[in-house]
Amino acid sequence: MAKITKRSEDYSQWYHDIVIGAEMADYAPVRGCMVIRPWGYAIWERMQRALDDMFKATGHQNAYFPLLIPKSFLQKEAKHVEGFAPECAVVTHGGDKLLDEPLVIRPTSETIIWAMYKKWIQSWRDLPLLYNQWCNVVRWEMRTRLFLRTAEFLWQEGHTAHATAREAVEEAERMLGVYRTFAEEWMAMPVFTGRKSDSQKFAGAETTYTVEALMQDGRALQAGTSHYLGQNFAKAFDVRFQNREGALQYVYASSWGVSTRLVGALVMSHSDDAGLVLPPRLAPIQVVIVPILKADADNAAIRTAAARLAEPFGCAPFGSEPQGRRQDKPFGDAVRVRVDDRDNVSPGWKFNEWELKGVPIRVELGPKDLAAGQVVLVRRDTGEKTPIPQGELALRVPEILDEMQSALYERAKKRLEENCRTVETYDDFKRQVEEVGGFLFAPWCGRPECEARVTEETKATVRLLPDDAQEGSACMVCGKGPAKRVPFARAY
Amino acid sequence: MAKITKRSEDYSQWYHDIVIGAEMADYAPVRGCMVIRPWGYAIWERMQRALDDMFKATGHQNAYFPLLIPKSFLQKEAKHVEGFAPECAVVTHGGDKLLDEPLVIRPTSETIIWAMYKKWIQSWRDLPLLYNQWCNVVRWEMRTRLFLRTAEFLWQEGHTAHATAREAVEEAERMLGVYRTFAEEWMAMPVFTGRKSDSQKFAGAETTYTVEALMQDGRALQAGTSHYLGQNFAKAFDVRFQNREGALQYVYASSWGVSTRLVGALVMSHSDDAGLVLPPRLAPIQVVIVPILKADADNAAIRTAAARLAEPFGCAPFGSEPQGRRQDKPFGDAVRVRVDDRDNVSPGWKFNEWELKGVPIRVELGPKDLAAGQVVLVRRDTGEKTPIPQGELALRVPEILDEMQSALYERAKKRLEENCRTVETYDDFKRQVEEVGGFLFAPWCGRPECEARVTEETKATVRLLPDDAQEGSACMVCGKGPAKRVPFARAY
Repeated sequence: MAKITKRSEDYSQWYHDIVIGAEMADYAPVRGCMVIRPWGYAIWERMQRALDDMFKATGHQNAYFPLLIPKSFLQKEAKHVEGFAPECAVVTHGGDKLLDEPLVIRPTSETIIWAMYKKWIQSWRDLPLLYNQWCNVVRWEMRTRLFLRTAEFLWQEGHTAHATAREAVEEAERMLGVYRTFAEEWMAMPVFTGRKSDSQKFAGAETTYTVEALMQDGRALQAGTSHYLGQNFAKAFDVRFQNREGALQYVYASSWGVSTRLVGALVMSHSDDAGLVLPPRLAPIQVVIVPILKADADNAAIRTAAARLAEPFGCAPFGSEPQGRRQDKPFGDAVRVRVDDRDNVSPGWKFNEWELKGVPIRVELGPKDLAAGQVVLVRRDTGEKTPIPQGELALRVPEILDEMQSALYERAKKRLEENCRTVETYDDFKRQVEEVGGFLFAPWCGRPECEARVTEETKATVRLLPDDAQEGSACMVCGKGPAKRVPFARAY
Repeated sequence: MAKITKRSEDYSQWYHDIVIGAEMADYAPVRGCMVIRPWGYAIWERMQRALDDMFKATGHQNAYFPLLIPKSFLQKEAKHVEGFAPECAVVTHGGDKLLDEPLVIRPTSETIIWAMYKKWIQSWRDLPLLYNQWCNVVRWEMRTRLFLRTAEFLWQEGHTAHATAREAVEEAERMLGVYRTFAEEWMAMPVFTGRKSDSQKFAGAETTYTVEALMQDGRALQAGTSHYLGQNFAKAFDVRFQNREGALQYVYASSWGVSTRLVGALVMSHSDDAGLVLPPRLAPIQVVIVPILKADADNAAIRTAAARLAEPFGCAPFGSEPQGRRQDKPFGDAVRVRVDDRDNVSPGWKFNEWELKGVPIRVELGPKDLAAGQVVLVRRDTGEKTPIPQGELALRVPEILDEMQSALYERAKKRLEENCRTVETYDDFKRQVEEVGGFLFAPWCGRPECEARVTEETKATVRLLPDDAQEGSACMVCGKGPAKRVPFARAY
């Protein structure tokens, strides 16, 4: 069993140990790339399913656009190429021949999508287009941190086209809301939302909105962004439509995305020194039933009893699953239950493994429990052990999963609140960034020079401009006003 | 509304007209690439969901491996590199720098996956590994045919590792069975299954199994393959495990895949001169309700009635959906219903559009129907119109969808049977390939020279070696025996 470094010793190593130890991901033999292993991918699949349902419920449709983009397309939007060209992987050869024009692997798809929108949009009747795609993107990156920063990552990118600026802004704000709901209700991760400062905007956006979370080490993590793109891409690709009055007009755009980075955020939000802690709604397995098997003993009765305990949850009847072929049912309303009846590892080893993998509830069934008609239920988040009658298991489990989902959110929310501090002076700011971290709400005049100085000197950045930002006294850097109180933090 | 060429005039143009006209896909501005538009993607999503459920029910887990593969990895398996290297897109630059080693965009992932399996497999306890990934692949290709042949396509690729040859063969055969079930029960597409001849095997396989379907123009289409890879990739990547007896041994492998090509196969299987015909289980919308609205009239009553008709199917209550944001529910057990109450196109235009898009059932509701308390139900496959009482709609629709699913399969099966012919002489073979097409069951001695001659002279290939192949007289090409009767056809 993998040894997990303590958070207090080395937070970064702790994160790495969990991701590797819980078999969520591994380093690929290609620089900057990762392999997402089944446990990590199953979490991503549940995230995808929840998000995709929310996208469809807000009227979006999925589509798929090409991986490869002519290099010249990037150059059509000045800020976009400036932001993305240095990060691109470039295909120069295809089918053993040098290409006439190099192709970049999409770092994001605005350009190729707006090249298509030009074909599809002529009239106000064609609007809005509310499209999303699930895909891989590549941004050349050498400092890999599994899930958080990799050259290739998986994500979804929504790209919408609208007749009016107002609609496009509403769309960007709507999707920010969807991301917030997902973070809070599925990931049990409280977040702040707001606009990014100009220096932190997406390359090509008029406004970038962000969802910001706080990790256990006091660093912030940008968990998702949505952008109001104005008419920038419509102008770059000459996408005009005839409006209801018959006049030609450029189309307004939004785009929005979240990525496999969310899996990293999930790990860092709830886990502890024993391993991963998963909110039940995203756990691939929510309950593991471990029969306490004895070496050199007849374990038939206890095996049968364990399998029977699982049946009310929709598991296959006892004895019907062939060796090595677990039929986990990762979706649907039913509770996701696994019976771990392996006989080549000890019960203690199993307990550690499922703790490391973050399964919310462990159900232990030993010979004494069998005799007493009970099981021992162990909660992953608190470690609390509760004996309960076997007949009550199927009833109690959904309640406890709900409780745990709420408890994780409340715990994270408390931590977030405790790590929001008000700072008045730049000296105090510098000290607190080093010593306590978290979100430091400090007065800033809004000038990029002051922001740049803070970032250069402290590595902290303005995380967002809250809609309800309080008027501060004077800017902590230049002393001038008017200033607003905004959250700064070091970030992943 | 797009005009559809008749099949009898130009089958290839007919296919193109449907794919473009039904807005399933479009040509990308990158050579060889396509854009999958929402209607095409929604069909693919339903295929994915059905297949993924079947993969999980047979014990597989999803994972994700990198897009980019070091060129040297391909070279480790001699036949594999010979087959795939000429088709690769090559990345030579990343982050504005020339790479030390070029990377190829995966044409298939055996090499990168077996490089990882080497890290993960040490003992018999680690086996089997039953992994699948959903992803994009690139095979350089200039002759694009939407869905059927594109440089980039979407697919799933299963890659499994086993302790014994027998298990790996069983796995390849099991997945062939899954593909067959999917083709028959979801796509309503009857198929033949069997092994490929040596010349048609996957590059690096010991045995390739195939699912072969017949299109309406008499050409065959390979709809999916599974491979028994022996120890070829284990040897190339030195993947050995300690068996139960303590000895080191190379691991056995299988791989299997289907792609977005299946969407093309679906189009060609059932569609007619009016457009797409979709089997109900894969139709993104199964029922469209069209209220017959009159210009300059009060349509309130008929609109309300149409919306109310949809409510028993789980559609949002009347009036609750914001303009332009349809909340289609593409999954789940419920019937997928859309009310088309647009007022900027005529009823006739709507009928044509939904016919072109292949929606299985159209429900017409005109003022007279409203007065009579009825609707007119129109089946897409037969054109049959049936007036039924409004109160019976929710009951009748699921029955009719089931009937249609079966009817499409039976019709395709009849066509397949009618297009299987027995041929004795090579002269007759050549004539029938030209004049009638279909599967020509002809005696072949099994020698690659005879196969190559047939392919060169007629463009027909051996589609598969049936398990129950009859002994033929003598090979139709060389006249020697022993010969077996195998199906030849021209193929997509």
